[in-house]
Amino acid sequence: MNAPVPPFHTLRWRAPGVVEVLDQRRLPLEEHYLVVESAETMAGAIRTLAVRGAPAIGCAAAYGIAIEAFRLRDQPDDRFEAGLHHAFALLAASRPTAVNLFWALERMRAERNATRTLLRAEAVRHLIEAAHLILAEDVRANEAMGRHGAGLVPDDAVVLTHCNAGALATAGHGTALGVIRSAVAQGKRVRVFADETRPVLQGARLTAWELARDGIPVTLLPDGAAGHLMATQRIDLVVVGADRIAANGDVANKIGTYGVAVLARRHGIPFYVAAPASTFDLTLVSGADIPIEQRDAGEVTGYGGVRWAPEHIGVFNPAFDVTPAELVTAIITECGVIREPDPASIRAVLGIDRNA
Amino acid sequence: MNAPVPPFHTLRWRAPGVVEVLDQRRLPLEEHYLVVESAETMAGAIRTLAVRGAPAIGCAAAYGIAIEAFRLRDQPDDRFEAGLHHAFALLAASRPTAVNLFWALERMRAERNATRTLLRAEAVRHLIEAAHLILAEDVRANEAMGRHGAGLVPDDAVVLTHCNAGALATAGHGTALGVIRSAVAQGKRVRVFADETRPVLQGARLTAWELARDGIPVTLLPDGAAGHLMATQRIDLVVVGADRIAANGDVANKIGTYGVAVLARRHGIPFYVAAPASTFDLTLVSGADIPIEQRDAGEVTGYGGVRWAPEHIGVFNPAFDVTPAELVTAIITECGVIREPDPASIRAVLGIDRNA
Repeated sequence: MNAPVPPFHTLRWRAPGVVEVLDQRRLPLEEHYLVVESAETMAGAIRTLAVRGAPAIGCAAAYGIAIEAFRLRDQPDDRFEAGLHHAFALLAASRPTAVNLFWALERMRAERNATRTLLRAEAVRHLIEAAHLILAEDVRANEAMGRHGAGLVPDDAVVLTHCNAGALATAGHGTALGVIRSAVAQGKRVRVFADETRPVLQGARLTAWELARDGIPVTLLPDGAAGHLMATQRIDLVVVGADRIAANGDVANKIGTYGVAVLARRHGIPFYVAAPASTFDLTLVSGADIPIEQRDAGEVTGYGGVRWAPEHIGVFNPAFDVTPAELVTAIITECGVIREPDPASIRAVLGIDRNA
Repeated sequence: MNAPVPPFHTLRWRAPGVVEVLDQRRLPLEEHYLVVESAETMAGAIRTLAVRGAPAIGCAAAYGIAIEAFRLRDQPDDRFEAGLHHAFALLAASRPTAVNLFWALERMRAERNATRTLLRAEAVRHLIEAAHLILAEDVRANEAMGRHGAGLVPDDAVVLTHCNAGALATAGHGTALGVIRSAVAQGKRVRVFADETRPVLQGARLTAWELARDGIPVTLLPDGAAGHLMATQRIDLVVVGADRIAANGDVANKIGTYGVAVLARRHGIPFYVAAPASTFDLTLVSGADIPIEQRDAGEVTGYGGVRWAPEHIGVFNPAFDVTPAELVTAIITECGVIREPDPASIRAVLGIDRNA
């Protein structure tokens, strides 16, 4: 378990205009990298969950613009502009809930607007550098979240997590799993229970894989077993990621998170959310305004080519749910820990309106 | 959807010493009947979930004794006694949580003790008749539960259920689904949301199949989506079955039930349990005393020959959890509805100690 394993990269700029994306649909059975050279391919990788996790799809979207700009670098102005315009639209339509996607696209659009007067090669280079910066900032944000969050993890901790908010969901280190990794790096012993997270099984396939690879003890459970776990065993804390956080601290995250938060409250277990500032959408008053993606019925009626449900039935498959702020003990960000999140505490820790 | 479909039988005495058991592991893909002619085969069918659901495994255990008695009918006394003794032990060890199994075996043991002085053929006939009676009583109990419970279902109802407490979990009609069937038979419109119920997917495979077959609209959801469902749609009530109910009204049922009950309470949705008197174990003070079966890791690490979890991980796979009585709005039994279940209300409705 503790033997060195080769590092993996959620996504990586491999050569000019070429991004490698670890195909998470095939994990843990094989580590296969997709070679992505256009915004259209990147949008497809996001839509089909080859790359997922709010921070990771922010980075993926940024690179989608960068590689499209590179691909079109020798086109006439009108084709270049139209191509980039189309790329922004394709990527923005790939998934609706994670705000990091739109945040990253806005940064890339600002970069494009700021470099419009430069020579084409210079402008393209700026877009590529902007994507690199978004990726590097994400890793740094995760490491800072880890430092802030590790203080909330006791020694000999037993932690429950849901879905995958790990290195695979980010540019590296992870948000929720980053907090665990940082606590382990401080010498703390941590055992993790991982909800399998139907329907796409990110917990079973990705979180279990990441943690086992790092030698962090991990125990997998069906989502429905979380209540029995809390009722019968010591769980010190729950930590999850987020896909969008409203101004009042309501948190959209992978379907099932809300139920875990309700159970944690019943059992007096702290419920933490780890997310970078780019996951906050302060334009939304509350979680009721967060668009919730509905995904294909086929994700629920079976898995991996095996169908187990009968025909002639309806399917309810929301990809996310909303956990109200009142159930969130604290949000761990790269700027610090937001305890009892509300509009004021969020703006204070994120450093917004500090001089207003 | 409403075209007539051939009836199915969860289990059926087909010929002397031969019981057919519908193999629920293969549903909904095929309707295959196992031919069971020994207690050992029946214990295997129970252990491997070919037949499951507390009332159904009570009937299956009773038939296990009956067919074993028939099989050994020409053996010398010592072999007959030893064979029956072994059959009781095998069946009692097949699964630990559903008390109906032990209740049915106790009835069969009492029948054996009461008929010990009869000629062998007569004694065997009595055991077979006792098993037939247990099955017939279960169907009648379900129909009575349906009558009592249907009054709790409004017209145009939207109902959430977990696991399968249907005809497949009983000798026929069902407990929780029996309540729904009876409401529909009264002319009420009922739509059902069915939790898929990982890891064995009884909701996706069995509840969806049973209801679609009956033309009752059913929508499947991942277990983790129940919270979002309650938060965003009208759900009029939850109804589930039970595997064992303690004297104080605590209910052991399929893993995940407790989480659904906690969410129902948060959203002010009535949470009903439908179960026959044979599911009560009044020797246990509370649910803390109910033995909870831990099942094989392979149920969680994949499904149907597909493995999706990595190696070198732990697995937590309890088959049941305990819902405390305080979360149960009422228990629907064949004797009547037990509202706000507690030791006194349970004994009153079940008619225990009435003259004490």
